[in-house]
Amino acid sequence: MPNPSSSDAIGIGLLGLGVVGAGVFDTLLSRAEVYTRRGGRALEVRRVAVRDVERERSLPLGDVTLSQDPIAVATAPDIAITVELMGGEQPALDCIRAALRSGKHVVTANKEVMAKHGPELLALAQAQSVELEYEASVGGGIPIISPLKRDLQANEVQRLQAIINGTTNFMLTAMAQHGASYEDALAEAQRLGYAEADPSSDVEGTDAAYKLAILASLAFHTTVSPDEIYCEGITQLTARDFRYAADLGYVIRLLATAQRVEGQPDTLEARVHPTLVPRSEPLARVDGVLNAVAVEGDLLGRAIFQGEGAGAGPTTSAVVADVLDVAYGIAAGQKPRPLRPSDPPACIRPIGELRMPYYLRMVVYDRPGVLADLGRLLAEHQTSIASLIQVEADAVAGTAELIMTTHETKEADLDAFREAVRGMESVHDIGVRIRMETARA
Amino acid sequence: MPNPSSSDAIGIGLLGLGVVGAGVFDTLLSRAEVYTRRGGRALEVRRVAVRDVERERSLPLGDVTLSQDPIAVATAPDIAITVELMGGEQPALDCIRAALRSGKHVVTANKEVMAKHGPELLALAQAQSVELEYEASVGGGIPIISPLKRDLQANEVQRLQAIINGTTNFMLTAMAQHGASYEDALAEAQRLGYAEADPSSDVEGTDAAYKLAILASLAFHTTVSPDEIYCEGITQLTARDFRYAADLGYVIRLLATAQRVEGQPDTLEARVHPTLVPRSEPLARVDGVLNAVAVEGDLLGRAIFQGEGAGAGPTTSAVVADVLDVAYGIAAGQKPRPLRPSDPPACIRPIGELRMPYYLRMVVYDRPGVLADLGRLLAEHQTSIASLIQVEADAVAGTAELIMTTHETKEADLDAFREAVRGMESVHDIGVRIRMETARA
Repeated sequence: MPNPSSSDAIGIGLLGLGVVGAGVFDTLLSRAEVYTRRGGRALEVRRVAVRDVERERSLPLGDVTLSQDPIAVATAPDIAITVELMGGEQPALDCIRAALRSGKHVVTANKEVMAKHGPELLALAQAQSVELEYEASVGGGIPIISPLKRDLQANEVQRLQAIINGTTNFMLTAMAQHGASYEDALAEAQRLGYAEADPSSDVEGTDAAYKLAILASLAFHTTVSPDEIYCEGITQLTARDFRYAADLGYVIRLLATAQRVEGQPDTLEARVHPTLVPRSEPLARVDGVLNAVAVEGDLLGRAIFQGEGAGAGPTTSAVVADVLDVAYGIAAGQKPRPLRPSDPPACIRPIGELRMPYYLRMVVYDRPGVLADLGRLLAEHQTSIASLIQVEADAVAGTAELIMTTHETKEADLDAFREAVRGMESVHDIGVRIRMETARA
Repeated sequence: MPNPSSSDAIGIGLLGLGVVGAGVFDTLLSRAEVYTRRGGRALEVRRVAVRDVERERSLPLGDVTLSQDPIAVATAPDIAITVELMGGEQPALDCIRAALRSGKHVVTANKEVMAKHGPELLALAQAQSVELEYEASVGGGIPIISPLKRDLQANEVQRLQAIINGTTNFMLTAMAQHGASYEDALAEAQRLGYAEADPSSDVEGTDAAYKLAILASLAFHTTVSPDEIYCEGITQLTARDFRYAADLGYVIRLLATAQRVEGQPDTLEARVHPTLVPRSEPLARVDGVLNAVAVEGDLLGRAIFQGEGAGAGPTTSAVVADVLDVAYGIAAGQKPRPLRPSDPPACIRPIGELRMPYYLRMVVYDRPGVLADLGRLLAEHQTSIASLIQVEADAVAGTAELIMTTHETKEADLDAFREAVRGMESVHDIGVRIRMETARA
């Protein structure tokens, strides 16, 4: 950097030097001159916390102090901004707390920490008169945290719907386009580095639920905890579901949805689950590892933010934007803005109260009377059929596959119907049910 | 508003009470309680400048002072924020200048003023230590100004491409989907209130050029004046061009493009013109009055911002967001941030230097040797054909229509070719040429 020991440079402590950490380090170093010219003060990465200080690294670390003690880096006296890129709940949470308590501004990409502990940490930052920025925690390089905080704030947000897990979107796209099985799609995602060796956080929807908790809390000016979010992953889906969905004019997406319940303004739905999305909808066209967030506000209509939701470059873009924003605030002598008071906490509606159309796939024995029995059970559970396809499943076993879509119905009723079906001896496999979005006007 | 004469309320002066002005007024009034709770200080519209104070209005104006003198409203001592929603260059420019000189913060939706006078006004705001915000000047309710200023700032932006005129996008969509003529599409847009009685600023591309000047100046940290932007409208397009484009796998969009010239980092292309866009590209799917802005940055990849680009609701969303942001800054006792210094001014490359593939439609007399003559002329002008369709145009007149697409070629060469063609006696009408985008990997 141009003035490695200039006294008015802003000192940065970096926690983590993985793919994103190295990207942030390299970007701050290689663009130092441009950032200094625009911001008036040099940015200097002075300390970096790593797991193993002995490891060989290709980065030109120069005078930077490497340390295996992230708390020491986060709180060092020559640091003004702590950039937390370790990921995971601990020790990241303790490091962020320690940094804030030492009066450091903090920039983090940590969705788990912000989803679980955001309110506590934001209040601590406010009490310490420092900034806590987390644009990179959701949607990689797509600006969404800052637009929700600033640009959409005049609206009452009615609904937020997002594709915010690139791994599963890549897998769902592969299953739809190439007829890949779940296992093959996962193996391919792992081969390309889009999925971890243990993919559970992605495929079970936990990652998306963390991100939705962050977005919903901002959009609805409240606190939505990840525990309150109904979460269903993609592990039950089969290649056949993608084929049938396509026949019906739909694609399958792992959608994260938060919306106000009509007529109950203090109640929210917050849920992550595979969803049949009409092919004409913009979110149906978000393929591969792309992410997208659609926000509907009463003034705005619907705005959609789309881009690369992961990877070193996009995440670095968001992290460094936060660092620059904090640094320019320091250079300008600005006080951080106080937190906006939250509205009263929202109730989260139990998933059984959800009302949607559903896609059902089941395998029945091909005998007279099966459809009549199913029809009677559906009627008993206040559910009516919108479409029905019967496919011969296994001529030897004498089974047929039924693909049904229902009109809008209450989820608890639908689940009770499926429980009743499970008891029918003419039913071989009750299969899957997938919630369906309807097309917009 | 809750505390109409509370001394710590923030006074607002509103210039203009048209569709957007009324929307802003109504929103600030009806949501006063919520905005006060979130921001800590009440917002009070105290004065409104209108053309005719005698006119009957359905708005509950209460104690608000109406005036026909916008300068007096903009500079009144009980006003802290002046909101300029008159539109047009004058008297809006004088009002904004007067407000800034009186130490008022200014929020404006005025693309023409910001495109032509942005640098002067932003410098004046800085000298006066006040804010000048203009999120609503481009893209209606879509956040784009603030993301370019803050969230994408770590990037070197390589390209910005946008659909930022809803009127023409509505017309182009109608011409493509219903085979409407230009005149019918315009009449329909006027009937629906999407086009003005005098539509020239929209259909000739001037409106889009103002907006592109604003976006390009931010994206490339420089000053792009609207005069420097090559601007071609949609008035030459015929229903046939949409049909042929569809046959080739394209749609026609009025694209506003600003990009760095490869190998010449200090040189930009900045242009507004009808463009054939491959149907697979996201911007090809932006239909009707929707707007979209795609930004490509070296870290980010490509991010796309899409939504409603005009209308009272979306524009109010952006104006009120700016007002709230300024008001919360006042409440927090923040100083405005200094302007970022611009990079050295960019050169704008003359349009003749552009290199793109082109679509050409011309009418020739159906005689032996015509194609050979055209082929020879193309070769003389370093242009090669990518595809060619010949359609019988008029059996009686003995003419045929030729639809050609070229490989990438220099625009000056292509124009010279068309001039040479104009002199051929076997050519009846040299028709149109439309620039073509190529599909991304």
